[in-house]
Amino acid sequence: MNLLENTLEQIEALDEAVMVAAQQKLDLLSKPLGSLGRLEDLCRQLAGIYGTVSYDLSKKVVIAFAGDHGVYEEGVAKDPQWITKAQIPNFASGTCAVGTLARFIGADVVAVDVGVNCDEKLEGVLDYKIRKGTSNMAKGAAMTREEAIRCLEIGIEVAQNTLKEGYRVLAIGEMGIANTTPSSAIISVFGDCDPIEVTGRGAGLSPEGVLHKVDVIRKAIELNKPNKEDAIDVLSKVGGFEIGAMAGAILGAAAMHVPVVLDGFISYAAALLAKHLHPHATDHMICSHYSAEPGTIKATELLEMEPMLHLDMRLGEGSGGILVFQLLDAANYLFNHMATREASGC
Amino acid sequence: MNLLENTLEQIEALDEAVMVAAQQKLDLLSKPLGSLGRLEDLCRQLAGIYGTVSYDLSKKVVIAFAGDHGVYEEGVAKDPQWITKAQIPNFASGTCAVGTLARFIGADVVAVDVGVNCDEKLEGVLDYKIRKGTSNMAKGAAMTREEAIRCLEIGIEVAQNTLKEGYRVLAIGEMGIANTTPSSAIISVFGDCDPIEVTGRGAGLSPEGVLHKVDVIRKAIELNKPNKEDAIDVLSKVGGFEIGAMAGAILGAAAMHVPVVLDGFISYAAALLAKHLHPHATDHMICSHYSAEPGTIKATELLEMEPMLHLDMRLGEGSGGILVFQLLDAANYLFNHMATREASGC
Repeated sequence: MNLLENTLEQIEALDEAVMVAAQQKLDLLSKPLGSLGRLEDLCRQLAGIYGTVSYDLSKKVVIAFAGDHGVYEEGVAKDPQWITKAQIPNFASGTCAVGTLARFIGADVVAVDVGVNCDEKLEGVLDYKIRKGTSNMAKGAAMTREEAIRCLEIGIEVAQNTLKEGYRVLAIGEMGIANTTPSSAIISVFGDCDPIEVTGRGAGLSPEGVLHKVDVIRKAIELNKPNKEDAIDVLSKVGGFEIGAMAGAILGAAAMHVPVVLDGFISYAAALLAKHLHPHATDHMICSHYSAEPGTIKATELLEMEPMLHLDMRLGEGSGGILVFQLLDAANYLFNHMATREASGC
Repeated sequence: MNLLENTLEQIEALDEAVMVAAQQKLDLLSKPLGSLGRLEDLCRQLAGIYGTVSYDLSKKVVIAFAGDHGVYEEGVAKDPQWITKAQIPNFASGTCAVGTLARFIGADVVAVDVGVNCDEKLEGVLDYKIRKGTSNMAKGAAMTREEAIRCLEIGIEVAQNTLKEGYRVLAIGEMGIANTTPSSAIISVFGDCDPIEVTGRGAGLSPEGVLHKVDVIRKAIELNKPNKEDAIDVLSKVGGFEIGAMAGAILGAAAMHVPVVLDGFISYAAALLAKHLHPHATDHMICSHYSAEPGTIKATELLEMEPMLHLDMRLGEGSGGILVFQLLDAANYLFNHMATREASGC
């Protein structure tokens, strides 16, 4: 049995009894029942994942995967491709958005090259390069089936190695110029909808640019005919190395009973892959923000999740997810430090 | 000239030149232009309020006003009225939700009695009691015009005295059993809509209870005929002491060039009063969360604001607003610590 199959076997449903105990604890607090809304949902979910109401969230990490995309050559992105290579070392050094937020919040960042278009070793970045970017999905499959399994397994391996260092919450991020294109393709396939419904401006395309991007995605889907019943087929035909690795990281964390905070649009595509690989994967996911990409609506519908932050961000990297760390800490602090109704006399 | 008029005279529009400078600073950072979305809006707004791009947010405070409501006797709330009196001291001691969050985030809480139904002095609570609750608005005006001005001025005075201690951001909160009823009435008047559109379950009414609450609000509006062109008239006819004081605190902070973070539904009613008292009051407000009360939609439309947090909270106290302090700090940290595009090479 390979790593992927082995990991999928270890993923379980949440511990319902512990979730009931968590809600009972919440219901004793000095407030109207249920009035903390989704902060209560988070406490219950975390208890169900960890299997205890006494959990520790202090050590947090963002794992960001970077890869390039053959479909870039179709002109689907505004920025030059070399930005992927130039920006990913800034994740490790902490000068990009997610690195800066991580320093502020007290989280660590692990950056991973799964397919950046360069020959040199990137400073501070784990080297798991499969090859220098996917193939152009408008002309054939983005990757082979073996490569699809490989990037999922890289995600599992990196997540599990990282979590073994004691991290109790994981957020996933990414860097990859043009990666909203495969993300829209994946969401379009799983959502059975025309790409126009789930394709947006990425980092700043013009309206004409968006229409061209839609055409490219339509062409890729028609040509490759991804089978939505087979997530590995979808990933290999119209996915990306970093997207597959993010899906793998979700599965790897879920198998270790660790919650995974999603980021924005690209992470939702990865989350859909993970959901189709294991029905209980979503139980371990925490939705973060409503990104400016219009396909977020469809993706979160398919995931049956609602973002908590509405900030119109469209930066990626994991920058939206890491803001959720603050909400988790706040929810956990309330869970453990608010007075009970009995103690407060209310 | 009285304190209210004097305060209104001091409120100015935001400093546009500084806001342009803030955006220029944001545009140099290593990210696609505008991709931090509303975090960028916050940086720009804060710069415009403070009149500088180098602002300090470290000292933060929540001021929570408490009052009771004569309309309680109509059976519009699920909880007993004595909860107001019992809970407000927990704001000061830090054991209720907002007090607990304040400790977690490192903010201070000031609790103020503007009209709690009790004779005793409440421990740790500033005593600005006007009287022991408003009159029943279903039978006449909730308060006199003089009392309406008085509660606005209490809000101004408490906010300004507090801010003089060096606080750079204010959030407003409240405690008052039945206070979603006057809040719905205020929003209904300013929104020119039937109360059914803006009335919800409060802390937990049944569907029948909500319909009864709607009837009571309709009756109060028909009887008192509040004039929506005159915010003081609206406050006196269908408002509440703590709601007026919250509106006053907004005006007092705005006059001192300090941003005010709103909380949920009740704070939006207060914000509408402040907006109608001064057209630039809203420039100084920061919207927080989308509470579970359905009238939030109408209220935020009228305020031309969009909540950033979607957490289905319905607790009040200032508990939603204080979570925004975390977002302000995160935005400010990015604003000052992210690498520029030039430095990062991206």
